[in-house]
Amino acid sequence: MSFIRSPAVPIESINPKVKNCEYAIRGEVFNYALRLQEELEKNPGSHPFDEIIYCNLGNPQALNQQPITFFRQVLALCEYPALLDSEETPKLFSSDAISRARQIRAMLSGKSTGAYSHSKGTKGLREMIAAGIALRDGYPANAEDIFLTDGVSSAVHMIMQLLIRSERDGILCPIPQYPLYSASIALHGGKLVPYELNEASGWGLEVFELKKRIDMAREDGKCVRALVVINPGNPTGQVLSESNQQEIVELCRKEGLVLLADEVYQENVYVKNKKFISFKRIARSLDYKEDEVALVSFQSISKGYYGECGKRGGYMELCGFSEDVKDQLYKVASVDLCSNTSGQILASLIMNPPQPGEESHELFLAEKEAILSSLARRAKALEDAFNSMEGVLCQKVEGAMYLFPRIKLPEKAIEAAKKVNMAPDTFYALKLLDDTGLVLVPGSGFGQAPNTWHVRTTILPEEHKIPAIVSRLKAFHESFMREFRD
Amino acid sequence: MSFIRSPAVPIESINPKVKNCEYAIRGEVFNYALRLQEELEKNPGSHPFDEIIYCNLGNPQALNQQPITFFRQVLALCEYPALLDSEETPKLFSSDAISRARQIRAMLSGKSTGAYSHSKGTKGLREMIAAGIALRDGYPANAEDIFLTDGVSSAVHMIMQLLIRSERDGILCPIPQYPLYSASIALHGGKLVPYELNEASGWGLEVFELKKRIDMAREDGKCVRALVVINPGNPTGQVLSESNQQEIVELCRKEGLVLLADEVYQENVYVKNKKFISFKRIARSLDYKEDEVALVSFQSISKGYYGECGKRGGYMELCGFSEDVKDQLYKVASVDLCSNTSGQILASLIMNPPQPGEESHELFLAEKEAILSSLARRAKALEDAFNSMEGVLCQKVEGAMYLFPRIKLPEKAIEAAKKVNMAPDTFYALKLLDDTGLVLVPGSGFGQAPNTWHVRTTILPEEHKIPAIVSRLKAFHESFMREFRD
Repeated sequence: MSFIRSPAVPIESINPKVKNCEYAIRGEVFNYALRLQEELEKNPGSHPFDEIIYCNLGNPQALNQQPITFFRQVLALCEYPALLDSEETPKLFSSDAISRARQIRAMLSGKSTGAYSHSKGTKGLREMIAAGIALRDGYPANAEDIFLTDGVSSAVHMIMQLLIRSERDGILCPIPQYPLYSASIALHGGKLVPYELNEASGWGLEVFELKKRIDMAREDGKCVRALVVINPGNPTGQVLSESNQQEIVELCRKEGLVLLADEVYQENVYVKNKKFISFKRIARSLDYKEDEVALVSFQSISKGYYGECGKRGGYMELCGFSEDVKDQLYKVASVDLCSNTSGQILASLIMNPPQPGEESHELFLAEKEAILSSLARRAKALEDAFNSMEGVLCQKVEGAMYLFPRIKLPEKAIEAAKKVNMAPDTFYALKLLDDTGLVLVPGSGFGQAPNTWHVRTTILPEEHKIPAIVSRLKAFHESFMREFRD
Repeated sequence: MSFIRSPAVPIESINPKVKNCEYAIRGEVFNYALRLQEELEKNPGSHPFDEIIYCNLGNPQALNQQPITFFRQVLALCEYPALLDSEETPKLFSSDAISRARQIRAMLSGKSTGAYSHSKGTKGLREMIAAGIALRDGYPANAEDIFLTDGVSSAVHMIMQLLIRSERDGILCPIPQYPLYSASIALHGGKLVPYELNEASGWGLEVFELKKRIDMAREDGKCVRALVVINPGNPTGQVLSESNQQEIVELCRKEGLVLLADEVYQENVYVKNKKFISFKRIARSLDYKEDEVALVSFQSISKGYYGECGKRGGYMELCGFSEDVKDQLYKVASVDLCSNTSGQILASLIMNPPQPGEESHELFLAEKEAILSSLARRAKALEDAFNSMEGVLCQKVEGAMYLFPRIKLPEKAIEAAKKVNMAPDTFYALKLLDDTGLVLVPGSGFGQAPNTWHVRTTILPEEHKIPAIVSRLKAFHESFMREFRD
């Protein structure tokens, strides 16, 4: 490796792990959409649609979902505490938001959101989160096991960095998966060990598939360190059954794997016959003591009914990790000092929302229920729409924020895609975008069984736009099939 | 590497790069201070001091520095935009804060701080920052070269990850340095190539020292990729002269190094005979075209007169990088979606503060000048205090937020430290803490010439506490010397 004179950083000289990582959600189709949007802004009428609708990313407030009033009142009072001393303030803010802001301020270093906090996050906020977790699960949680981070992405990177020593370390990931996991594993130089979810059974997670993949990886000389489970699932939308969860915990314990439980959609369950149960509760209800199962639970402020993506907040709760390993994580966290305090505050609020009897409770509940019921309706409407389309099959959306319909692409379409050196699902997604202004993500961005093609869409466009979106989708698909039907 | 059954993550099994990284600022002395604080809270009077004063970290608002009113008004209005529609609001917020908040909201995705922004940061905010940079330097800046990040720490990790392929890649770092750099290089598996600052000449940076270190590293088979320069310096407090900066730019160009310019203290210059000049301005004023010098400038909202550490905001401006390499950085940024929007907003505000004639300008200027003049007075008072102490020499604090006095520790003290298996500067710092409640960081946390001992303190305790702090420091040092004087 000779030294490089000029330019100082040619493309060949960058870290190959950076080159190897991919994140399709803001990849090719999205970047093309950004260019179309610019064209549309410069030349209205230049495309067969009035607006680009971004269905590529779980970003509710970008599509006009409103934040929860109570949460934003508390945030504003924490950011500009002079408000707490003003007579006008009770006209503008509810009394419980005022008292919650006072309570939170007292926990903050220097009573200010502008100070670095403890590197795990403000202690008082972690204690509130621990209390919220305990209330949710019925088992105690410890503030010292909680690390507040700038979104779950940060926390996932910390864990991958901790666990991956070399490319011989394998991390089990679902296929399809949310590509933060594949990207993070690539960036940290590890090996993604895929396990297929079974589309035919509603994207079921089967333990014999897990076991098979673990054995194959080990035969290949890999050290399988952890199992990523996303529940409710992204992009797949399934909610695991309790017995399935129990099998998973048993497997992890037996095989010495860390269970990485992405639980960011815990508030997004749309069907009556399923409910969210945390993996921690599952482990405790199986009577396992803490040190018998190594588990990391990830929760985020970005999803649920709060959708606070841009505020970057979340936490990981660590169970079954020794003190010396947690000390190492704390040390790594201290290098970057702390996560942003707004995100920390929101994480404490989502885990401790207004209670019955409190002034804000009625409005809070109304806002929450409006959002969740609307998400459920939109999920159903889009699911039915896809299922009505020729050659398209969409599994039931039990939770999360996405649909992942399978599209049986005709041979002619697959050939046409090959001719332009494109994956068939990308070909379909780009044509769909050109025709409708809808931005979806090709299934290959998430992983899919060989020779199957999918697209992922969110359920997040405003409810009143859904009928028009459905019409456009159907019209596009009919026209696509007319062109490419075998 | 056999698989591990239980526990799933024993300490021997974690990534050795995590074990190798250190960050003394929240290390041993700090963690001991946290324990002392708990003891003090449980048992007031149990120690010879009433409070722990954290002088280990540049965290102004933890020590009661107030945020800038205008900045916080804008933030609160952006977080709870319902305020913008209320009659009460003009009684509570200045009109220019209201109009700035409206202007910013219009730039945000979905007009909300709760949406993920573009992965480089909100375009309109980047444009404002670019305008602020151009005004500062007198040379144009491009919004597409700016990446908004959750503090400079994030940006530094991105660059180290980009540049470091293996332990053969070396990054030149000043000794002493802010240990984010050493920690990040360790985490990314690279090699820190040290260059010593010359304490005797006020921590001067000498090009022949740089050249010597580059040659030594290359002889050792290393590929030297980049040069970290912190200006104004941390922990050393020097402000580089213009000619020194020119030499540095020339060297980087000639040797094909990326110049990593940590410029977070650009607003913290306390002496009349020095001023901050950005490395970008230096490069342009040397008539180098953009592609002739690869440069990354880091700026943060955490320092200056704004001190918004807990909000986590900052940016890196990339010059002289090819489009394909910037695309790779954009791709990595997209994996974590975006930095937090409050931090983005504050970054735009610090680079575009109220102007003369605007309603908030007078108060803004008064707040800014009060903070900066107080910092300058505190720097001088502490510098004089250390210089009055036996065997202690403190270089002039020209800028930043720290003092890094050198302490000539008597042999007896060094022996006593060895006996308890401690570095002598840690021994001194722990005794100082036990005696005074002041939390400083041992010089070894930053690097120092062999057989020299330093401690770093901030200049941030409230001005009215400085006399008492000075008394306690002097009294402690006298007593320490009485005990250990040869």
